[in-house]
Amino acid sequence: MEIHSVGIVGLGLIGGSLARTIRLHAKSIRVYGTDILPETMQLAHLMDAIDEDLTEDNLPEMDLILVALYPEAIVTWIEEHRSAFKPGAIVIDCGGVKETIVSRIQPLADTWHFIGGHPMSGREISGFKASRDDLFDKASMILTPSPAEDLQVLQCVRNFFSDIGFRRIQFTTPRTHDEMIAYTSQLAHVVSSAYVKSELAQKHRGFSAGSFADMTRVAKVNENMWTELFFLNRENLLPEIDGLIARLTDYRDALDREDREGMRALLREGRETKEGLEEN
Amino acid sequence: MEIHSVGIVGLGLIGGSLARTIRLHAKSIRVYGTDILPETMQLAHLMDAIDEDLTEDNLPEMDLILVALYPEAIVTWIEEHRSAFKPGAIVIDCGGVKETIVSRIQPLADTWHFIGGHPMSGREISGFKASRDDLFDKASMILTPSPAEDLQVLQCVRNFFSDIGFRRIQFTTPRTHDEMIAYTSQLAHVVSSAYVKSELAQKHRGFSAGSFADMTRVAKVNENMWTELFFLNRENLLPEIDGLIARLTDYRDALDREDREGMRALLREGRETKEGLEEN
Repeated sequence: MEIHSVGIVGLGLIGGSLARTIRLHAKSIRVYGTDILPETMQLAHLMDAIDEDLTEDNLPEMDLILVALYPEAIVTWIEEHRSAFKPGAIVIDCGGVKETIVSRIQPLADTWHFIGGHPMSGREISGFKASRDDLFDKASMILTPSPAEDLQVLQCVRNFFSDIGFRRIQFTTPRTHDEMIAYTSQLAHVVSSAYVKSELAQKHRGFSAGSFADMTRVAKVNENMWTELFFLNRENLLPEIDGLIARLTDYRDALDREDREGMRALLREGRETKEGLEEN
Repeated sequence: MEIHSVGIVGLGLIGGSLARTIRLHAKSIRVYGTDILPETMQLAHLMDAIDEDLTEDNLPEMDLILVALYPEAIVTWIEEHRSAFKPGAIVIDCGGVKETIVSRIQPLADTWHFIGGHPMSGREISGFKASRDDLFDKASMILTPSPAEDLQVLQCVRNFFSDIGFRRIQFTTPRTHDEMIAYTSQLAHVVSSAYVKSELAQKHRGFSAGSFADMTRVAKVNENMWTELFFLNRENLLPEIDGLIARLTDYRDALDREDREGMRALLREGRETKEGLEEN
């Protein structure tokens, strides 16, 4: 089982970066791409990000199809095009939530293979112009295959993502993915967005350093995509926000009641937790 | 008015980095240093971070004295050594809070000059071994001089910090410093420490990317120094934590009541705020 042709649906930050990354690292693979924006298609061609347009005509020839749209659009696109997938084709989506997508698409995969996917890299800006051919160089590719999936298919997919530069291929369940991502990614975007809104932010120049930059980097989130992602993962994200608010309240209360030993213990626990993460 | 000799008190991350930075960029200045840890003194000599030990004997010769200790220790050290400062000497502390230090030290500055200072750069690790000769290369040096300070002294100090590589010299009041730092730096350390404590953090590998790394970077805070800093700036930090908790609760509530438009508006406001910061 070898991949000779890849069709990429959506050439924004993720799809555009995947196209350019494949072109860079896997020169024997032909890359076909499509996007609803004509200017993106033009740019993708000018940048040599794709070999050809992905069309109704050549879609049935694709060995691998990567769907890099917003979550609801992923489901709609696959529902509408699945009759054109060739037998044995592998379809992987790149949505930031997995349960809602996988539960709706997996049952449809009959003669073709579906694997939920999430390339774990991004930037605080979006669109093809933000795409990079090294966006995934140190990233993890999360895959949530059906437990019944062929080992040969999984091996092929793992090799493909390794070959184009992903550092780690993480197999897991949609449920675990969504639970983890609520904490590692979605909560970070909520915090960053909330952090930047203090009135003092307007005067930060000259008074800020790396920690302020880090805290506010992803505040420049695309509100349409992230609102959709948050609500599709509401059951996991809500308790994560609540958990963080509760933990912040511990620090707040220690300060309020002038409990220096309590504050020291809270900070020590945080330091030890962080150090523990770096060791394991 | 020219600086030929600098005495540095405390050769940890900040003092050690200042010593090495001066040695790199201002070769005509002699650097004298002292630290309570004998191994730090030995390392500082082996690394050529200082020309000589700063002693009771040569302290009266210093043109500039940089005090890079914890806040309470800064006050104590200056109180105990001020009789040895030569007339006209400039003394600058490097503490992360300014009102409490400046209000206690400024009245003592009679024949010598005192200027509150805060070099706005750091690392999540401390001690001389963490010091770097480029730590301040793109950093801001905040100075909180008395309104009655000589312009000549201010000009001399500004040139000194510019010459050794600081990108910006920010003059302000101790009150504004403390208010700004509560938000730009102290709150970030509280958030990072609280963020890392979710149980899910233990399983983050393979599920995390840049936003998780950014959020948790400064969780490795030195709990002794930061507890002291937090309590010396309690009146400013407490409302900042409360403000962030209130803002996080807005996102939480929008999610809870399934208010998609509300969430979109919250994220849009965060994005626009962040974009505004980059333009001004």
